[in-house]
Amino acid sequence: MAKIPVGILGATGMVGQQYIALLANHPWFEVRYVAASPRSAGKKYREATAGRWHAAGGIPHPAVWDLIVEDANDVSKARAAEKRGDCAFVFSALEMGKDEIKTLEATYASAGIPVVSNASAHRLTEDVPMLIAEVNPQHTDIIPLQRKNHSWDKGFIVVKPNCSIQSYMTPIWALIQAGYEVKRMVVTTLQAVSGAGYPGVASLDMIDNIVPYIGGEEEKSEQEPLKILGSIAGGKIENYTGIKISAHCNRVPVIDGHTVAVSMEFGNKKPSIEEVKKIWTAFKALPQELEFPMAPVRPIIIREEADRPQPRKDRNADKAMAISVGRIRPCNVFDIRFVGLSHNTVRGAAGGGILNAELLKAKGYIG
Amino acid sequence: MAKIPVGILGATGMVGQQYIALLANHPWFEVRYVAASPRSAGKKYREATAGRWHAAGGIPHPAVWDLIVEDANDVSKARAAEKRGDCAFVFSALEMGKDEIKTLEATYASAGIPVVSNASAHRLTEDVPMLIAEVNPQHTDIIPLQRKNHSWDKGFIVVKPNCSIQSYMTPIWALIQAGYEVKRMVVTTLQAVSGAGYPGVASLDMIDNIVPYIGGEEEKSEQEPLKILGSIAGGKIENYTGIKISAHCNRVPVIDGHTVAVSMEFGNKKPSIEEVKKIWTAFKALPQELEFPMAPVRPIIIREEADRPQPRKDRNADKAMAISVGRIRPCNVFDIRFVGLSHNTVRGAAGGGILNAELLKAKGYIG
Amino acid sequence: MAKIPVGILGATGMVGQQYIALLANHPWFEVRYVAASPRSAGKKYREATAGRWHAAGGIPHPAVWDLIVEDANDVSKARAAEKRGDCAFVFSALEMGKDEIKTLEATYASAGIPVVSNASAHRLTEDVPMLIAEVNPQHTDIIPLQRKNHSWDKGFIVVKPNCSIQSYMTPIWALIQAGYEVKRMVVTTLQAVSGAGYPGVASLDMIDNIVPYIGGEEEKSEQEPLKILGSIAGGKIENYTGIKISAHCNRVPVIDGHTVAVSMEFGNKKPSIEEVKKIWTAFKALPQELEFPMAPVRPIIIREEADRPQPRKDRNADKAMAISVGRIRPCNVFDIRFVGLSHNTVRGAAGGGILNAELLKAKGYIG
Amino acid sequence: MAKIPVGILGATGMVGQQYIALLANHPWFEVRYVAASPRSAGKKYREATAGRWHAAGGIPHPAVWDLIVEDANDVSKARAAEKRGDCAFVFSALEMGKDEIKTLEATYASAGIPVVSNASAHRLTEDVPMLIAEVNPQHTDIIPLQRKNHSWDKGFIVVKPNCSIQSYMTPIWALIQAGYEVKRMVVTTLQAVSGAGYPGVASLDMIDNIVPYIGGEEEKSEQEPLKILGSIAGGKIENYTGIKISAHCNRVPVIDGHTVAVSMEFGNKKPSIEEVKKIWTAFKALPQELEFPMAPVRPIIIREEADRPQPRKDRNADKAMAISVGRIRPCNVFDIRFVGLSHNTVRGAAGGGILNAELLKAKGYIG
Repeated sequence: MAKIPVGILGATGMVGQQYIALLANHPWFEVRYVAASPRSAGKKYREATAGRWHAAGGIPHPAVWDLIVEDANDVSKARAAEKRGDCAFVFSALEMGKDEIKTLEATYASAGIPVVSNASAHRLTEDVPMLIAEVNPQHTDIIPLQRKNHSWDKGFIVVKPNCSIQSYMTPIWALIQAGYEVKRMVVTTLQAVSGAGYPGVASLDMIDNIVPYIGGEEEKSEQEPLKILGSIAGGKIENYTGIKISAHCNRVPVIDGHTVAVSMEFGNKKPSIEEVKKIWTAFKALPQELEFPMAPVRPIIIREEADRPQPRKDRNADKAMAISVGRIRPCNVFDIRFVGLSHNTVRGAAGGGILNAELLKAKGYIG
Repeated sequence: MAKIPVGILGATGMVGQQYIALLANHPWFEVRYVAASPRSAGKKYREATAGRWHAAGGIPHPAVWDLIVEDANDVSKARAAEKRGDCAFVFSALEMGKDEIKTLEATYASAGIPVVSNASAHRLTEDVPMLIAEVNPQHTDIIPLQRKNHSWDKGFIVVKPNCSIQSYMTPIWALIQAGYEVKRMVVTTLQAVSGAGYPGVASLDMIDNIVPYIGGEEEKSEQEPLKILGSIAGGKIENYTGIKISAHCNRVPVIDGHTVAVSMEFGNKKPSIEEVKKIWTAFKALPQELEFPMAPVRPIIIREEADRPQPRKDRNADKAMAISVGRIRPCNVFDIRFVGLSHNTVRGAAGGGILNAELLKAKGYIG
Repeated sequence: MAKIPVGILGATGMVGQQYIALLANHPWFEVRYVAASPRSAGKKYREATAGRWHAAGGIPHPAVWDLIVEDANDVSKARAAEKRGDCAFVFSALEMGKDEIKTLEATYASAGIPVVSNASAHRLTEDVPMLIAEVNPQHTDIIPLQRKNHSWDKGFIVVKPNCSIQSYMTPIWALIQAGYEVKRMVVTTLQAVSGAGYPGVASLDMIDNIVPYIGGEEEKSEQEPLKILGSIAGGKIENYTGIKISAHCNRVPVIDGHTVAVSMEFGNKKPSIEEVKKIWTAFKALPQELEFPMAPVRPIIIREEADRPQPRKDRNADKAMAISVGRIRPCNVFDIRFVGLSHNTVRGAAGGGILNAELLKAKGYIG
Repeated sequence: MAKIPVGILGATGMVGQQYIALLANHPWFEVRYVAASPRSAGKKYREATAGRWHAAGGIPHPAVWDLIVEDANDVSKARAAEKRGDCAFVFSALEMGKDEIKTLEATYASAGIPVVSNASAHRLTEDVPMLIAEVNPQHTDIIPLQRKNHSWDKGFIVVKPNCSIQSYMTPIWALIQAGYEVKRMVVTTLQAVSGAGYPGVASLDMIDNIVPYIGGEEEKSEQEPLKILGSIAGGKIENYTGIKISAHCNRVPVIDGHTVAVSMEFGNKKPSIEEVKKIWTAFKALPQELEFPMAPVRPIIIREEADRPQPRKDRNADKAMAISVGRIRPCNVFDIRFVGLSHNTVRGAAGGGILNAELLKAKGYIG
């Protein structure tokens, strides 16, 4: 089977590099188009990233190495690539102002090029689904409405949520789906520096120190879950109103892997610790059932050791796509507490985006 | 005025060293007796700590340098020192089994030597006060009862709480005292490695990593505040029952300074953010009123910057004895959230112990 | 082809774990016997390592998981395993006193079990070859003499050198072999904490700090190369006398990967920078010619960036078995300077040991 | 005695802040003028540094707090301050292009304002002395020549050397002065991140990593000592030609404190280890004899422990102005090896600058 040709917008940045690394041997997709800022445009990809290659997956695939970087602002280049069969859709890892991204991604969609985005720009756009493939795959159903709203034919936009919520979103969804409503949560994140890009956080702030603040992160961590748990009604996605989240976000001296300490209060129906473990161990969703290439075998891995999960030891579990949880125990204030962990630049960024694209292919929206 | 001669039990360990460093120029107390494990006994203090001096305050005071280390298990040595005027009371920084410490500290008290302890052994002993000088100085009133219970004449035991609670205990007490009952709290700590002593936490666990577990720490963080807020009744200290705390304790790659993220729920009477700030800014207690040497001018310092307090930048505020708080903001689940920070080996260990001794002197129990 | 069954002595320690991880899918060898301290003996391997699995290669291979750990001191267990076809030779990653290891490894050899050792005990034993497979494969020729000296039939001992020398040993050998004698070298190492095992270096010594001393390391770094470059004469390996090395060894807060800064003085024949690069790029040795499974395609990889190699970015080059070099430039005092880097627990420990075993199989000494 | 009023150019940057902190209670000098980039000009000093105060010495002195920051490019402001008695001379901690600094510092000097500079711009200017107060105080004798060359009346420029050389420069000078010529040296530095300013080095480069390269640093480390050891001849400072230095410069995850590993080769007259120790212990120079306020009691402190000096433990020795040395031992290639350490932002920057100003006052050039 011929692979689907894909483009990367913002291909030279940290998340863009991660896409290149993770797609190196992908069975369905093949990177054939790369675009970035005008500064990189015209260079070979290897030149444009020389001396600033950060992705965990090592140096780029030889086939990507010599691709000429195009100007991401020039959508006509992508259309040309689409016409010659080099760009069926794009992953957006754009790094620019939020409003600029919002407009530019819409321009791509309008030009007939589906956009699978990592950026936060369209996360609160009402007819744009914010997908975690294991949690709300049915939100892809809004794509036809989105196309209709904008009179787009082939193009559309989907986004993924912020990296800070990956470590608790799938676990609480598994419980809600099993009939245990999580009503209130206090979550405290310990987030890795790779989440801030490069150069990102100064080493003077991260040696012998932590920073108890990440701009905008607490709002995203509290609000995005409501849309993900929401339902399609009246041509848009309406927020779920059954949960309240309080998020404390901290930056810690860790390269990759966001850890989160969670206290959960359930509704009237409260699971036991054992039931929680059983539900999480058994949890599988569409990506597992259809065996998507990027899907972890088990979305949630329970660590039974007293002091796990830990970022350096658990972030790479199952291609860095599994969420590790541990320390599941009663809460002295709410009902149950636990610690969650996921890889922020794989599961929480490029890996999650690729899984979304696999979902879209399975549903027939791309390819 | 002649200084009060004081002994240090466990003088060669990390906390013992911190006592030596902080007492170097103390106006009331003078270290004239040092005791440690049999291994160190008989050596000069400088020899016993050679190559393993860790305290922030630099090398020991010359007067201590040549003191002969005694065997801490041999209480007769301390009695002899007391008789010759070299040891009016002791700071206990013993590092041995909990039961051994419990017995040994009682033996010192029984021998007529007051014990101001850093150890956890007697924290839950009903007639032993667990003191934070700014929060519950009135708990010293139980000392006469304690003496009577054991038929001790001059000796007694007081303890200080675990270092993990310092960053939130004084702030919530200030609010409770002002009439705003804190009913429920979720606290997540990011604790420094010095809290685990030396060698303590392995560097393999603290480079590019955090550990979301510290043995016994969550229990202490949840239970000790209840005793500190308790009241003397029936010859013992009865726990306060008006508050529930859920603690998540984490180890992070920071040398000194425990940070804590706190969500608080108040009773019917709820303060505004501005009232909280006003109460904390204005808060002073007995150590401030009587101007104890070790007391910070203001027990609570509010940082208005968006990203403070931070351990490396704020732990040394006011001789490392002030608690820094910041990010005071509404909570999405409870009422108000904030970040607290205090120096764990000064305010949370030796400095807090010295402040307790200053309180005991002011109250006439030692000296 | 049936795989050769192999045992691991010290299988539960850090290096032992690394052997298990690296041998998981080895085409020639299969772990069928594990031995460790009496404390672990009798447990399943998974139980014996529960909560202290550190190796980079993830959790053990299922086939190893349920092996019963034997007492490494009891050589009769290994003989029994050898007889039933489960242990054709052993990798020694023993962690005990040097003299004990020396005796115990000889006991294994005497019992007919070849020992491929990581320990330093026999490194200076005159008839034991200290092998880097790319540098001195011909030193295996001393094995028949060693057997004869001890009247051993099948058994023998080979060792590998200290991890600190891997980053410069192969590069200077490549130059010497090309006719450019390196006469004097000053090397300064920046060594990772995994080199000290677990718990190893305290985090209090590695946060905001470096330690400019590692016990015994400078002596090994200066002396071991002389034996590796030596020649077999009179029934023993005689040291090479043509080179003098001065080593400064430092511990730095890095998990894996030893970096070294090297200044080299050549004899009368001095290469240009370009010749050095050409020699290193072209360098291949027996492991490459015979395509040993663990051999890197190129033993030496030149990084042209101004600021490489760096441990986190380059340690895993080619299965963590390649040595990365960079900053090749003139020296203001000697002739040429460069920076070298290799993975200390793979190339410098278990991976290097496996490569030695592959060499021994190719030469017919095991299998 | 009235204090000498002093101005700080580049007062809001990291080094400028360090000057403010260190001068807070200086007995001779008082900060009465602050200047920085146009962006800060017009703001109060406290506003201009809000949220980016990094200096170790804590928040600024209240008297500085409300000073209005002037535009450092506008020399007329400094002249006006000089006229009204607020600026007898300036410390330059300017952060701009090298050529701009070169011109601007000359403009200050030409305007009658002596410049004590931290910048590298004028380090190689032939008639500008590069001072370490303990090493070459006699180089101030060139100031009259410098004034004459430029027809300056009161103004002049002195500079201090790069922070990387402090840890070995005073030690080798003490040996040279004692008659033991150091002919060749190989030095490998492990430099702290504060040397790169803020934000400086990215945390992604400093967690679980070191960077074996600092742009321009090796050249400075090799060449600047030649000028410092030089002599005044023909109206300029002529380089010393008796020493060759090879420097390998590395960035390590340490906040403050540059460590250096040194191998030294002496001329015909070679000291014993004991002589080296005796010379370093006894070494005192003009700043010690005249008891300058910023001078350490002993410029060189010998640590006898096997594993010292270490940056976190020794950088603050004697107001962070003393150089700590240790591991003095024979070298296998040259004659003697040692480890040196000094505080890069105090001894190596603002503290060294203040000591230079104290020297200039003692010599009658300022005040």
